[in-house]
Amino acid sequence: MAARCHPVHDIGAAIASGSVPVSGMIVAPCSMRSLAAIAHGFDDNLLTRAASVQLKERRRLILLAREAPLTLAHLRNMTAVTEMGAVVMPPVPAFYLGHGTLEEAASQVAARAVDMMNLSAACAQAWSP
Amino acid sequence: MAARCHPVHDIGAAIASGSVPVSGMIVAPCSMRSLAAIAHGFDDNLLTRAASVQLKERRRLILLAREAPLTLAHLRNMTAVTEMGAVVMPPVPAFYLGHGTLEEAASQVAARAVDMMNLSAACAQAWSP
Amino acid sequence: MAARCHPVHDIGAAIASGSVPVSGMIVAPCSMRSLAAIAHGFDDNLLTRAASVQLKERRRLILLAREAPLTLAHLRNMTAVTEMGAVVMPPVPAFYLGHGTLEEAASQVAARAVDMMNLSAACAQAWSP
Amino acid sequence: MAARCHPVHDIGAAIASGSVPVSGMIVAPCSMRSLAAIAHGFDDNLLTRAASVQLKERRRLILLAREAPLTLAHLRNMTAVTEMGAVVMPPVPAFYLGHGTLEEAASQVAARAVDMMNLSAACAQAWSP
Amino acid sequence: MAARCHPVHDIGAAIASGSVPVSGMIVAPCSMRSLAAIAHGFDDNLLTRAASVQLKERRRLILLAREAPLTLAHLRNMTAVTEMGAVVMPPVPAFYLGHGTLEEAASQVAARAVDMMNLSAACAQAWSP
Amino acid sequence: MAARCHPVHDIGAAIASGSVPVSGMIVAPCSMRSLAAIAHGFDDNLLTRAASVQLKERRRLILLAREAPLTLAHLRNMTAVTEMGAVVMPPVPAFYLGHGTLEEAASQVAARAVDMMNLSAACAQAWSP
Amino acid sequence: MAARCHPVHDIGAAIASGSVPVSGMIVAPCSMRSLAAIAHGFDDNLLTRAASVQLKERRRLILLAREAPLTLAHLRNMTAVTEMGAVVMPPVPAFYLGHGTLEEAASQVAARAVDMMNLSAACAQAWSP
Amino acid sequence: MAARCHPVHDIGAAIASGSVPVSGMIVAPCSMRSLAAIAHGFDDNLLTRAASVQLKERRRLILLAREAPLTLAHLRNMTAVTEMGAVVMPPVPAFYLGHGTLEEAASQVAARAVDMMNLSAACAQAWSP
Amino acid sequence: MAARCHPVHDIGAAIASGSVPVSGMIVAPCSMRSLAAIAHGFDDNLLTRAASVQLKERRRLILLAREAPLTLAHLRNMTAVTEMGAVVMPPVPAFYLGHGTLEEAASQVAARAVDMMNLSAACAQAWSP
Amino acid sequence: MAARCHPVHDIGAAIASGSVPVSGMIVAPCSMRSLAAIAHGFDDNLLTRAASVQLKERRRLILLAREAPLTLAHLRNMTAVTEMGAVVMPPVPAFYLGHGTLEEAASQVAARAVDMMNLSAACAQAWSP
Amino acid sequence: MAARCHPVHDIGAAIASGSVPVSGMIVAPCSMRSLAAIAHGFDDNLLTRAASVQLKERRRLILLAREAPLTLAHLRNMTAVTEMGAVVMPPVPAFYLGHGTLEEAASQVAARAVDMMNLSAACAQAWSP
Amino acid sequence: MAARCHPVHDIGAAIASGSVPVSGMIVAPCSMRSLAAIAHGFDDNLLTRAASVQLKERRRLILLAREAPLTLAHLRNMTAVTEMGAVVMPPVPAFYLGHGTLEEAASQVAARAVDMMNLSAACAQAWSP
Repeated sequence: MAARCHPVHDIGAAIASGSVPVSGMIVAPCSMRSLAAIAHGFDDNLLTRAASVQLKERRRLILLAREAPLTLAHLRNMTAVTEMGAVVMPPVPAFYLGHGTLEEAASQVAARAVDMMNLSAACAQAWSP
Repeated sequence: MAARCHPVHDIGAAIASGSVPVSGMIVAPCSMRSLAAIAHGFDDNLLTRAASVQLKERRRLILLAREAPLTLAHLRNMTAVTEMGAVVMPPVPAFYLGHGTLEEAASQVAARAVDMMNLSAACAQAWSP
Repeated sequence: MAARCHPVHDIGAAIASGSVPVSGMIVAPCSMRSLAAIAHGFDDNLLTRAASVQLKERRRLILLAREAPLTLAHLRNMTAVTEMGAVVMPPVPAFYLGHGTLEEAASQVAARAVDMMNLSAACAQAWSP
Repeated sequence: MAARCHPVHDIGAAIASGSVPVSGMIVAPCSMRSLAAIAHGFDDNLLTRAASVQLKERRRLILLAREAPLTLAHLRNMTAVTEMGAVVMPPVPAFYLGHGTLEEAASQVAARAVDMMNLSAACAQAWSP
Repeated sequence: MAARCHPVHDIGAAIASGSVPVSGMIVAPCSMRSLAAIAHGFDDNLLTRAASVQLKERRRLILLAREAPLTLAHLRNMTAVTEMGAVVMPPVPAFYLGHGTLEEAASQVAARAVDMMNLSAACAQAWSP
Repeated sequence: MAARCHPVHDIGAAIASGSVPVSGMIVAPCSMRSLAAIAHGFDDNLLTRAASVQLKERRRLILLAREAPLTLAHLRNMTAVTEMGAVVMPPVPAFYLGHGTLEEAASQVAARAVDMMNLSAACAQAWSP
Repeated sequence: MAARCHPVHDIGAAIASGSVPVSGMIVAPCSMRSLAAIAHGFDDNLLTRAASVQLKERRRLILLAREAPLTLAHLRNMTAVTEMGAVVMPPVPAFYLGHGTLEEAASQVAARAVDMMNLSAACAQAWSP
Repeated sequence: MAARCHPVHDIGAAIASGSVPVSGMIVAPCSMRSLAAIAHGFDDNLLTRAASVQLKERRRLILLAREAPLTLAHLRNMTAVTEMGAVVMPPVPAFYLGHGTLEEAASQVAARAVDMMNLSAACAQAWSP
Repeated sequence: MAARCHPVHDIGAAIASGSVPVSGMIVAPCSMRSLAAIAHGFDDNLLTRAASVQLKERRRLILLAREAPLTLAHLRNMTAVTEMGAVVMPPVPAFYLGHGTLEEAASQVAARAVDMMNLSAACAQAWSP
Repeated sequence: MAARCHPVHDIGAAIASGSVPVSGMIVAPCSMRSLAAIAHGFDDNLLTRAASVQLKERRRLILLAREAPLTLAHLRNMTAVTEMGAVVMPPVPAFYLGHGTLEEAASQVAARAVDMMNLSAACAQAWSP
Repeated sequence: MAARCHPVHDIGAAIASGSVPVSGMIVAPCSMRSLAAIAHGFDDNLLTRAASVQLKERRRLILLAREAPLTLAHLRNMTAVTEMGAVVMPPVPAFYLGHGTLEEAASQVAARAVDMMNLSAACAQAWSP
Repeated sequence: MAARCHPVHDIGAAIASGSVPVSGMIVAPCSMRSLAAIAHGFDDNLLTRAASVQLKERRRLILLAREAPLTLAHLRNMTAVTEMGAVVMPPVPAFYLGHGTLEEAASQVAARAVDMMNLSAACAQAWSP
């Protein structure tokens, strides 16, 4: 799905500078390590640096953080990034939509994340009672 | 799976008193409303009262909180219950185990929750590299 | 003892408005649910609305909160209402006064609560060494 | 003025799900009970659930909270919703505009709230020195 | 209505000293600037100095703060003065009393503020269901 | 009831060292002075030192704190010891059990405290609806 | 000036119980040790116990704390007692009143402290511009 | 560059009211005094009032705060305005772009600030590796 | 005593810049207004700007803050400046030194302040038991 | 003493998953870097990931953190891990046991750490007065 | 090693006054009780009073605090004294220096503490790779 | 300008130990990554370890942190290091000195940083009105 690939340690890639305009960023999945680095401004590789750039330029940043159970450290990190403007979105299946396979459930999660970017018409399946 | 059922407003059921010994409690799924009530000691029905009793008796309480994305209020509530000794466990599938159906993924989540009760031998499928 | 009775859901009763002058309010016993509602400004029935009115009009509000053991949520709620000007008064017997029956002990607790209203001469039995 | 009506306990209405796109929400008037529920993620009826959905989807939420005087609980709740992205807008008349009737004043308040939704050209009367 | 007038920069007026007994003070309207100065102990003119004196002498101080919408700074200032013992009272009309003109509504607000001083019999119109 | 007695200033008694294994400790009654000392790690006599040892060895510590009304200092101390793992248990009678004498009520309180130690079968009378 | 004297360790004196009515208490001078004990609810002698009783009964407590310079611990203690309702009043001379001797200055400080008790007509010399 | 000029004390200028629509505001340079006033809602002149209006209307506000070294007060003020939605942007030169003169560096800083307003196509020179 | 005088609004005086080396600064007396301005980085005249410069250059700053009683705002401001490195020194007389006149007491206070500058041999009278 | 060895970067080792049951973990010595990573949920190698797993599974985690003197960052990290349930245990010798060599002292420290795991009978030498 | 000895309760000794110049103070070992007293400004004996004087005079204070494991109370006290300017220095041996006996290790700890006083040339053995 | 060079991963270099005396340290430029590591005690390379050593030995540490705009994470990190005693000094040009080239401006910044070390006579150009 990615049109361009950068090695994670290529900290000099264009997307690591705020002067290069992009619309935002989705991190999927977002490991607890990446979450911690973003929460504390620890820009130590291209992924966390680019995420930090979205925050400093006040662009959208969406984190599909997957971990269970959660510790206080995980929750404090999630709280910190939310206070900074990021969106924490655990990839929990939308059980009420009646998907059979994990793949369908994952696609719905991905579609919801893309919708949060406000780029275009909605991708996700809307719920109707 | 439940051996006994109580109406949610039967606040006088035995499990609503700390003097009645039980081993702990799993809330699955745990709605954002139940999470909020437990986090603030708002014991307004049997579910939230019984959960509060586990906390005051220092027994295990496991909350399979499902919501995405999360607001600051959700994260503050998760933090509060964790500080009180509960375990927040979002029902995110263990993608790395290669389950095909949502049902298999849900079973693994349930097994992990039961394991957290420390009642017996492990139910969940252990991961091996 | 009550000269007037209001159904708990009669949120339109006169005492639910700050423009109606009363001297204060004693909640006895004060359940953990009522305490939580008052602590968070959750005015969802006549009792908690009337209690909230005492706080906003800066009148005396006395809460005979009974629960043991206490969780962090209970203690945070007690702290919050105390910061707002309410008085948290757990109905613990004054063992050193040598009462024989629970009723005598409860009467002393009630008398002490009434004395905290500063309405008249002291009701409670003073301790003398 | 409402094109559609939902009973407040119809928690299954479409607007209670984040997957249904709306532009935002104005709560007018916003009672202290609704404010408290929104501030703590206590999604216990359709109004508070829908408000919570606006916050989790990062859409605009405007609360015309009316109460005086204010307690610490009210102010903490207003602070909490503001930190989550909502806009607290007490319906105080714009005295300097010289309106005669309460209705004119209320209309100006409503127009200002609608303007905060950023939907169209300004409705409210602009002030000129 | 004022029996005595002081220029706002006459910081040497008698009411600027705690040793001069007065019953309390109502600031109406209370601008966001005055609120901020009182909240931070910034006694830079006669109004804010006199307000500060009420707080240090533990006398009643009532602030009819008018602003909408509110920022975090406004809410933090309101919280701070409330923690110090002042009463924040936004001049929102009591819509449920059915006043027709803004002037009637303003009179009721003023009467409620005077009542909060506890000087005499109630001025405000009490609500009856 | 005590099998062994130590003078309160015998800070050199064996139970003052973490290297001596005991199961836990109940302080009954727990004065506000002892509560304050434990809350701040102020190990100034055998009682408070031994209580502190339970906390540092992560063993059970139960405090039957008796005081009413409570100040902010008392509530902050109760909060602090709870955050450290202790259990605050005000000796409030279980009115709903219908005890006649204060002694019966006190016995039930004591039995509940012993049950919190998890040493054996329950001592306290369980409540049944 | 004292009509009655109690040894500081006579913790059983009548004024150590909240059930004995007094109007309030002035501690002059208030050592940093007494301030610390009151701030943390450390009721370890008659002075600090009696001060704590004023706070729990919501009576006036005035502390003439004398120390310079101040550490963070001193300031935190002063803040804590102020949050609990006490009045911190450093015995700084009112230089602008033109007193010649330290004794005159001290008398004015004492008179101001007594005035804060709201017992009678003002004792202190009022300032006039 | 300014199309219109207002004296700094002309607090009655149109831009001091939220009902007058503008797109946002850049303060360049932003003195430590202006930063402090904005951070605390201290709307004491046209500049700080207008900045406060941007925050209450949730419009963009960009502060080119210049000071070095920074004290805790400066950092707390920067944190406060960031929590309120403003953007703190110290005018540090983009050394890696290889500008020779201070004027070129300042132009790039200005261009970056304008870009943060999201008004049009990017002004600033983008960085390319 | 001053070798050089600057008008308080001469914000362009040399001592308002950190690049001009001085040893530190004593503010005597320090009004509550100056304290508030320094605590919040509100550099609005030469006195508060110069004080702020001492803090940012990490030089000694001593504040002889005189006020009684103190409000929470005063105590929070004193706490803030102490956290930033300043020294709060209320001009309370050293009663135990037996001075007769206010002038002697004031001289000792001044000498102690000068000693805190660490410039030379001690000026203040040392206490000997 | 180790029955199995894993390279520190082998993040895929079985002990890095919560689904693999172990009893707990002792980190000896625990560098300030490891402490920081655990405190912030920064799971960047096998050691810190495995430690984090103990915390999320609510198992015992013991950290023999060695550093002196300590900075605020070190103390905040120690506080954070303690709040999450870990045990901070600086390897300070038990001077009062009269050991001669550093090795004996270190053995006692190790024995105490093992005892904290609650696996078996006590290893450490108990102190007797 | 001490040139002068004072009984711990001789609170009137010269070193208990800030007007007597000393260079600083090392507390070795520093019990948890002394640490708690210093952290809270609880100047109840000569040791804690003298330590408090170092802090208020902004002189160096070094605390060789020995305890393991640590509770939250211990860590909060260590944090508090560090915020006040003291140096917390647990007497952990410098294992990497290869000392054989506990006495050598203790000497190195002592030398490091003396070096922190900045009195003279370094005493401690420097580490070289 | 450097007399000695160490590879950044040579964590065993002499300057990584507190027992080796140096006067302090300037980090120029200080990346957001280094700032984050120092703020959280994350001593993961020679630069951040050496910086941490300055803080634990209470020596001067100066950070020329360059980033714009700033996120909450950056500001919290700057606040944390300032609370620990470091000096945050963004390399903003001193525009009022009238330098033409970026190099002159950078030299002045460097000179100011060196002056903050208090090693010798001032290097930076002082400002004169």
